Amino acid sequence: MKRNREFGVTSTAASGADVSTLRELNSISIVRAMRGQPPATVTELATRTGLSRPGTDVVVRGLVTDGWVKVVEPDGSSVGRPARRYRFNADAGHVLGVDVGGHKILVLLADLEGSVVHSHRLPVQPDADPAARLQAVDTAITQCLAAAGMRPDQVWAVTVGVTGPVDATGRTTLFTPLPGWASVSPAEHLAVRFSCPILVENDCKLAAVAERWKGAAQDADDIVYLLAGMRTGAGLILDGTLRRGHGGAAGEIGALKAVRWDSAPSHIENCPGVPDDIHPDDKAAWVFTQARLGDRDAKTALRRYVKDLAVGTAALVLTLDPQVVVLGGGYSRSADLIIDPLAHELGRLCLRVPEIRASSLGADSVALGALRVALDQIDAQLFTDGMPAPLTASS
Amino acid sequence: MKRNREFGVTSTAASGADVSTLRELNSISIVRAMRGQPPATVTELATRTGLSRPGTDVVVRGLVTDGWVKVVEPDGSSVGRPARRYRFNADAGHVLGVDVGGHKILVLLADLEGSVVHSHRLPVQPDADPAARLQAVDTAITQCLAAAGMRPDQVWAVTVGVTGPVDATGRTTLFTPLPGWASVSPAEHLAVRFSCPILVENDCKLAAVAERWKGAAQDADDIVYLLAGMRTGAGLILDGTLRRGHGGAAGEIGALKAVRWDSAPSHIENCPGVPDDIHPDDKAAWVFTQARLGDRDAKTALRRYVKDLAVGTAALVLTLDPQVVVLGGGYSRSADLIIDPLAHELGRLCLRVPEIRASSLGADSVALGALRVALDQIDAQLFTDGMPAPLTASS
Repeated sequence: MKRNREFGVTSTAASGADVSTLRELNSISIVRAMRGQPPATVTELATRTGLSRPGTDVVVRGLVTDGWVKVVEPDGSSVGRPARRYRFNADAGHVLGVDVGGHKILVLLADLEGSVVHSHRLPVQPDADPAARLQAVDTAITQCLAAAGMRPDQVWAVTVGVTGPVDATGRTTLFTPLPGWASVSPAEHLAVRFSCPILVENDCKLAAVAERWKGAAQDADDIVYLLAGMRTGAGLILDGTLRRGHGGAAGEIGALKAVRWDSAPSHIENCPGVPDDIHPDDKAAWVFTQARLGDRDAKTALRRYVKDLAVGTAALVLTLDPQVVVLGGGYSRSADLIIDPLAHELGRLCLRVPEIRASSLGADSVALGALRVALDQIDAQLFTDGMPAPLTASS
Repeated sequence: MKRNREFGVTSTAASGADVSTLRELNSISIVRAMRGQPPATVTELATRTGLSRPGTDVVVRGLVTDGWVKVVEPDGSSVGRPARRYRFNADAGHVLGVDVGGHKILVLLADLEGSVVHSHRLPVQPDADPAARLQAVDTAITQCLAAAGMRPDQVWAVTVGVTGPVDATGRTTLFTPLPGWASVSPAEHLAVRFSCPILVENDCKLAAVAERWKGAAQDADDIVYLLAGMRTGAGLILDGTLRRGHGGAAGEIGALKAVRWDSAPSHIENCPGVPDDIHPDDKAAWVFTQARLGDRDAKTALRRYVKDLAVGTAALVLTLDPQVVVLGGGYSRSADLIIDPLAHELGRLCLRVPEIRASSLGADSVALGALRVALDQIDAQLFTDGMPAPLTASS
């Protein structure tokens, strides 16, 4: 699954091999020029696209008829007869991003401009079996769609984020921490309800995509995303493209014992002095708070954690020499305690230390990346197959 | 420095932003259709390029006048009046690839189709100071050009391969094993003799490029190249593009002590039982020979070497999940002793084991990769600046 930035599939459209008519090429140009922008007049759109004004007018009228574009009537406040303006109909279709985590299911519903319309979160037991976890996915999706007043057939693409490398069949056969999940196909499960494309991708990879789309690395093309939490993982973007690897297993450096990621979180999770009655999910927050207050055990746990985290991070940095490392995952809520010592350790271990930034998306990053991948899927289809009228016009 | 496969800069040429005339675009199409091919008639070239026959004829005559294309007169053996044929004038210009190693300087001279016209190799002392090493480079280049009967102004591009990550200034300031070499700028040194572009690149990266161009990985797009010898290093190609990293330091996993590449070759080089009178450069060959003969110490040294080599290789494989690992460098002459146990170790350490292949280029790989990068530089210039007449027509 290649990643295309929004409006970023120039080469496909320019080759035009699969686009049947010039009008469709022009429709695509005009939609690109409109999407994510304020309403524009035909003259403005002609300028932006380089098409003739009469040609633009014809295409825009066609897009209005097909449901891709909405007319914005003048508000009558200006002098003379103001020109009619047009905007992309972002509600023509929607996409779902689903984060299937160990402890929660998070579903985001977004329009075609990527604006989140609704979100729904359900807790799930870490030891839930596949049937129970899939049931929670179904329930979360049902409730999200119901709250937004939408039907499954109004969803144009779904992306599901899961833990572990995703193989060509959309399963995590090589590795997954979720009980019994290795043989589960989330795409096949959801295909019963959705006839649209359903993609499955690794959670760290999706989080990396999200950080470049809307997060801490919007300006960077070479990014290492670190998931720092009860698990440690990585997602890689090079030259603006998500790296999947030949078998979907890029970024899985944590599987190498020598780089100490498997043991890193245990320093935090098993820190001495954590009260017995604290919920396992809240242990880390307690340790970080105590470290802030100067508690010696907590500070030692933090120091040891960062030292271990740094070894695997150094392996990624030395391999890729990225521009930016984004620190995400549950522990990144305390990124201010981690970033400086991590940079210090990388200085000892690496030839060149990249900039380290805290994630700005937090726990939503996986589901947001899933939305972006779903939108890319729609773009790729539109820009190769052309732009027929939207199947469903919800507004 | 992006890597373009020969004929591979479609996007630049297609955008046409910097190409001044349609004729130049057509010239480029026709040169692409000719290069590396047997002589062709105008009709054949028109078919290959999709241009009209009369248009092709005009452009081909212009290319002949400018010196890019040679006429191949019919040999008179066929019946009737056979059509005149044309071939790309690969001798219109030449490129130099220079491998500045610890123990040797290797210079390759190639024509514009990448065929090696002449090669020259000079030994150099491992402890030579920069002045002595640059003197050896100068001598090797002088002798190579003299043997080929060429002047420096007939060389269109030079690429110099050096050990260590190459920064934006063309120096190996972060790390180099060569004494005093960190502040040396090979490009500035050679600019006294050459007015053409002079590029500097890391040796492992160039070897990786060579293996994809003419070596063991011509069919692969995601490649980890391993330099296995008295030093251990790596070069990475992803999606067919050489990965340099943000600061030129991609592939430098060997700097991480935890992955044991720094100690790996010492098992071979310090194997017990190596005769005192053997030259340091020949120790490894002796050990591999003894291992083949069943010598216990040599077999132990080999086993320990592969175990250490595997840790750093696993870090690369787990990070990138490549299609192919190419085993190059001095030890790859005994690749048959290394590949199977390396695959076995990777099986223990990795989620997915890529195919491992022996380098097919041996000691020439760095200089060959340098030629390819020099040719890419010429292509990039021609295809953006257009195709003026060659500065010098050597034939």
